[in-house]
Amino acid sequence: MATLADIGLAAAINILSAFAFLLAFAVLRLQPINDRVYFPKWYLKGVRSSPIHSGTFVRKFVNLDLRSYLRFLGWMPAALKMPEPELIEHAGLDSSVYLRIYLIGLKIFVPITILAFAVLVPVNWTNTTLENSKVEYSDIDKLSISNIPNRSQRFWAHLVMAYVFSFWTCYVLFKEYEIIASMRLHFLASEKRRPDQFTVLVQNVPPDPDESVSELVEHFFLVNHRDHYLTHQTGFLGLCGDKVDAIEFYTSEVERLSKKAATEREKVKKDPKSVMPAAFVSFRTRWGAAVCAQTQQTRNPTLWLTKWAPEPRDVYWQNLAMPFVSLTVRRLIIAVAFFFLTFFFMIPIAFVQSLANIEGIEKAVPFLKPIIEVHIIKSFIQGFLPGIALKIFLIFLPTILMLMSKFEGFISLSALERRSASKYYLFLLVNVFLGSIVAGTAFQQLHTFMHQSANEIPKTIGVSIPMKATFFISYIMVDGWAGIAGEILRLKPLIVFHLKNFFLVKTEKDREEAMDPGSIEFGSSEPQIQLYFLLGLVYAVVTPFLLPFIIIFFGLAYAVFRHQIINVYNQEYESGAAFWPDVHGRIITALIISQLLLLGLLSTKEAAQSTPFLIALPILTIWFHRFCKSRYEPAFVKYPLQEAMMKDTLERAKEPNLDLKAYLVNAYVHPVFKDGDEDDSFSVDEEVVYDNVLVPTKRQSRRNTPAHSRYNGSSSPSLSDAIQEL
Amino acid sequence: MATLADIGLAAAINILSAFAFLLAFAVLRLQPINDRVYFPKWYLKGVRSSPIHSGTFVRKFVNLDLRSYLRFLGWMPAALKMPEPELIEHAGLDSSVYLRIYLIGLKIFVPITILAFAVLVPVNWTNTTLENSKVEYSDIDKLSISNIPNRSQRFWAHLVMAYVFSFWTCYVLFKEYEIIASMRLHFLASEKRRPDQFTVLVQNVPPDPDESVSELVEHFFLVNHRDHYLTHQTGFLGLCGDKVDAIEFYTSEVERLSKKAATEREKVKKDPKSVMPAAFVSFRTRWGAAVCAQTQQTRNPTLWLTKWAPEPRDVYWQNLAMPFVSLTVRRLIIAVAFFFLTFFFMIPIAFVQSLANIEGIEKAVPFLKPIIEVHIIKSFIQGFLPGIALKIFLIFLPTILMLMSKFEGFISLSALERRSASKYYLFLLVNVFLGSIVAGTAFQQLHTFMHQSANEIPKTIGVSIPMKATFFISYIMVDGWAGIAGEILRLKPLIVFHLKNFFLVKTEKDREEAMDPGSIEFGSSEPQIQLYFLLGLVYAVVTPFLLPFIIIFFGLAYAVFRHQIINVYNQEYESGAAFWPDVHGRIITALIISQLLLLGLLSTKEAAQSTPFLIALPILTIWFHRFCKSRYEPAFVKYPLQEAMMKDTLERAKEPNLDLKAYLVNAYVHPVFKDGDEDDSFSVDEEVVYDNVLVPTKRQSRRNTPAHSRYNGSSSPSLSDAIQEL
Repeated sequence: MATLADIGLAAAINILSAFAFLLAFAVLRLQPINDRVYFPKWYLKGVRSSPIHSGTFVRKFVNLDLRSYLRFLGWMPAALKMPEPELIEHAGLDSSVYLRIYLIGLKIFVPITILAFAVLVPVNWTNTTLENSKVEYSDIDKLSISNIPNRSQRFWAHLVMAYVFSFWTCYVLFKEYEIIASMRLHFLASEKRRPDQFTVLVQNVPPDPDESVSELVEHFFLVNHRDHYLTHQTGFLGLCGDKVDAIEFYTSEVERLSKKAATEREKVKKDPKSVMPAAFVSFRTRWGAAVCAQTQQTRNPTLWLTKWAPEPRDVYWQNLAMPFVSLTVRRLIIAVAFFFLTFFFMIPIAFVQSLANIEGIEKAVPFLKPIIEVHIIKSFIQGFLPGIALKIFLIFLPTILMLMSKFEGFISLSALERRSASKYYLFLLVNVFLGSIVAGTAFQQLHTFMHQSANEIPKTIGVSIPMKATFFISYIMVDGWAGIAGEILRLKPLIVFHLKNFFLVKTEKDREEAMDPGSIEFGSSEPQIQLYFLLGLVYAVVTPFLLPFIIIFFGLAYAVFRHQIINVYNQEYESGAAFWPDVHGRIITALIISQLLLLGLLSTKEAAQSTPFLIALPILTIWFHRFCKSRYEPAFVKYPLQEAMMKDTLERAKEPNLDLKAYLVNAYVHPVFKDGDEDDSFSVDEEVVYDNVLVPTKRQSRRNTPAHSRYNGSSSPSLSDAIQEL
Repeated sequence: MATLADIGLAAAINILSAFAFLLAFAVLRLQPINDRVYFPKWYLKGVRSSPIHSGTFVRKFVNLDLRSYLRFLGWMPAALKMPEPELIEHAGLDSSVYLRIYLIGLKIFVPITILAFAVLVPVNWTNTTLENSKVEYSDIDKLSISNIPNRSQRFWAHLVMAYVFSFWTCYVLFKEYEIIASMRLHFLASEKRRPDQFTVLVQNVPPDPDESVSELVEHFFLVNHRDHYLTHQTGFLGLCGDKVDAIEFYTSEVERLSKKAATEREKVKKDPKSVMPAAFVSFRTRWGAAVCAQTQQTRNPTLWLTKWAPEPRDVYWQNLAMPFVSLTVRRLIIAVAFFFLTFFFMIPIAFVQSLANIEGIEKAVPFLKPIIEVHIIKSFIQGFLPGIALKIFLIFLPTILMLMSKFEGFISLSALERRSASKYYLFLLVNVFLGSIVAGTAFQQLHTFMHQSANEIPKTIGVSIPMKATFFISYIMVDGWAGIAGEILRLKPLIVFHLKNFFLVKTEKDREEAMDPGSIEFGSSEPQIQLYFLLGLVYAVVTPFLLPFIIIFFGLAYAVFRHQIINVYNQEYESGAAFWPDVHGRIITALIISQLLLLGLLSTKEAAQSTPFLIALPILTIWFHRFCKSRYEPAFVKYPLQEAMMKDTLERAKEPNLDLKAYLVNAYVHPVFKDGDEDDSFSVDEEVVYDNVLVPTKRQSRRNTPAHSRYNGSSSPSLSDAIQEL
């Protein structure tokens, strides 16, 4: 059993290691040679360029200005300083709202911690149950609900606190949903004109023997949206030309390849079979697009499906052509596959582990035998091997989940990330949370739960909750604190950048490509934050001692990710915070889990009178969720006509002669077909999307690089760029 | 234990009683004096009038034409003869589709019965398990799954049949959903012009200090649906005038009252506070209405809520003004109340029963003591009393459920009926189905299930299933066969009509009002049909002997209700078969329940290999349900734009000078305000709604009554009608 002193020591070690990371970061980020690793966002925006071109030779690589080292935590206030509207313009709404998840953690847990320490800790501490019992116990247990004797009247304090905490959490969630819904609507209706405001994605265009897809789409919308239809673009199947590496820049080679690619493109364009039965249809007004996106077009609801077009960068082209029946079959397959992945993933891993032993390796590669037989190497391999299969699986898990989501047929990157996040959350809930509390593999738990009655399950888990507090405290410190501090150091991109820089980089363009700004990776990072919400809510009533650790996590993570979002990450797309309903729903799930587990725990404590009062809590919470859903979720799936009409009217008054058709003509072109006229389409794209983004910021720009990066607008092989470089 | 002979006797008794009912009906319906009881629908349509005015005195009351008695079952083929399109025109789509529920029962169970008798009965019969065991058993048990020994390979036959039956049921459901969806779309888009095609109901209009609700609505839609808005009508709070009985037809009284009512109406019209924040907004085109009904209007999704206007007769005016937050709170309250009603309704009834004993009555009314103490009366009361509280509760249950649904704030009668039906189905499922299988009250069951593991529950119920077969067979005969035969006799309306006719009727108008055609009462009758689907599907694999009883029920009910719908019932509203998704969903529920129970039953039979194969069945069924939902449900909630546009274009070509505004101006007026100008509004209404309904039918009309009935268009107190009669 861990005592307070043990925890204190562990905390000290973790704080020190986190501190070491932060210190290393503070030193590394000041070196000019690392500038592209720690400030890639500014390079991509063109407001910062390599410091290598200026100053003495040494100064190009090492920062010799000692004064700058003194303020080694100076990045923190700087990161916190940028006001939210500026942050939205700088990094997009997705990133800003993502940061609010950490903020909401602070908003929920700071008052809860204060209350819990003021009320529950004294109530728990002033008992002698554990002292009188013969059970081994730690100081932390003395602060927890375990120290209250069975049938005590003191459980009323916990019950009242459970209500207070739930109401507070719901209140914070409610306010936050309101703010984010209005942020989203404001963002969508903001002054910027974006192609997706006028465009609707039409899927499952039925085949027609007499007309091509393009003609069919035109005729259909000319008839059924007579006054509003403007133009459309149909998608092409991904029969793209060969990929061309920018390094192979021999002129002849490039010419040969680009000719080949051009022929291929022409072939594809002419072949009617390569045209997807999907189109991006644009309207004269936002009102017309809003109407088309929200209505059913024909009798058969599986044909002419319309929905809001994702932002051009956000389109996942491969999935546009999926027919309706195939979609429902795919979802079923993935649902079954995910079930098996979650509950039975240990089986193949155990199998691999059984193969990967010393004897197996010796058989496979006999010439290595002498080396392996060396004692120290042998014990290292024996200690290392069993874990490696699991480790590899866990590293690839988010990728596997993303592949599963892609197979399900979602048509935008943002939707894919959201779907992966849901899957990852379920996986963590079952295998990390439940797996740590109830020993055994997920499959064993499933088996146990199947053979237990409905009211036994919360009891079984609830009883183990207080005992696992110390385990989760160290989990928070190692995975949370040190993990976050490690995130800011960006060790992997740092090493990769310098390796590439040393061996591969030949041109300025190459250097730009060696930079890996990364992005938030919503699909894997958000579910991990949710685990902390779950732990905080579950332990708030049971073991309040865990709460300060959660608060430190949220505070540190907020500062670090705010810094990363401002200076490093470069989001590939912008979904307008479409993920918020998921985040909200998962915090509600955590709240309900915490209430059910408390119910189970208290019923084993024979606090019989209090149980009926606790049953009302999950019912009220579910009701609250349904209320929020109907009240705010429409803001994330629909687009109000009033807003659209206002915006249209304003625009018509301001720019009566706007040529919308010219503006929209190339907005949704398959990345493959952008190659030939990349420069043109880019200039349209960038003007459109980034025109107003490049507002003056407080960070000082060293030089403007006019070259646009491959990250904006398209991730296609930058063939024409290579030509430019010549 | 009931033997085959016992069942045969019971069947004979029930068949005889059903036959007696049918015979009584055949005789009674031929008497002219009962004509209004058995053919009210034709009176209401004006194609049939009282035969009392013609012929000799005796012939007015009794049919002396003996030949007509010979064909005493002649109504059956007549009822089955009317083709479906004519039936739709005659009785509406709701009624025609309602009949298809019985038809679907036949479609599902006739092939299943044939297969089960061809395959499962021989497989079960050719065992000697029961003969060798010492358990008491009946012949029916020999035909059932009970006769198969544990761990037998023969269970594979049941497993394969479970798959075949499930696939067949799903196939029938799928085809039927397709047909009904297209019937609905065809009905909605049929040639008839109806006010609800152009009209949208707007709720939660926000208060405005400067403008009245009416002005606000006009301005909002003039701005946001500029090209489509036509006109609107706002609703008034139900501050209606006194109700006036048609019998009190003294001139002065009527004049005084109608003046008072008129003053009251004027007052209400002028008082802005009595205006509901709701309006019926009409558009120039069906396209405009379809767009407005399917889109969100403003940022705040709880304001300016738009949905399709129900048909004018279908509007439930009292609920139009309910604010959004109140709605969600009301749903929560009713959900909790319904839970308690379902599981704890026995508690108050047991309490009432404990009060209502002989001693209690003697105390309350001491002067009756000598009568009560008579032996035969005493035993009658003692046998009768305990059941009466339960009986009264069950009679009033549909009314209670309807009140609960009204409290929840649904705005159309059809939605209220659908909601009540869902509640009633759950009640029957818990208290009749589960209650009969697992002994004890619903609350005791709940308690048992709470303390059982998830995989124990299907076992507990599954094991009891074969034992209850004989009970359910007699239930089907008594409740189903005899109940349906009793339905056609219409004993209660028959008696009430003759009583009224004898004591109250003074004018022809009174006689019309004494007629009680009734209607289908979807809210209570559909859940009862669903019980037969459930029984059929559950017993199809377990005890196929039950299936023929189900088939007879569906066949008889189909003929009887077809007759009633053609000749008797008068639907108050037309929802365009909006209830079908519910019917479909409940049959799917029954299918899944049957699969889970079979799984439970087989796992106790130690047929371990077959269990994994059965788990796939409910998963596939749920997937099928989701597929159907996304494929066909939109036809019941949305209105495709293509259809609307086609209809608009056709209409514009046919009637270029149509004055739509005049057509719509009085379509949605609160029934109270129809009084003053009832004749005008009626003529508009009837022309509109019934113009094309009165097509020539095959039934011979005796005389045309030009008087319109109170059932059409409005159920308001028919004050002006009373004046007309003078």
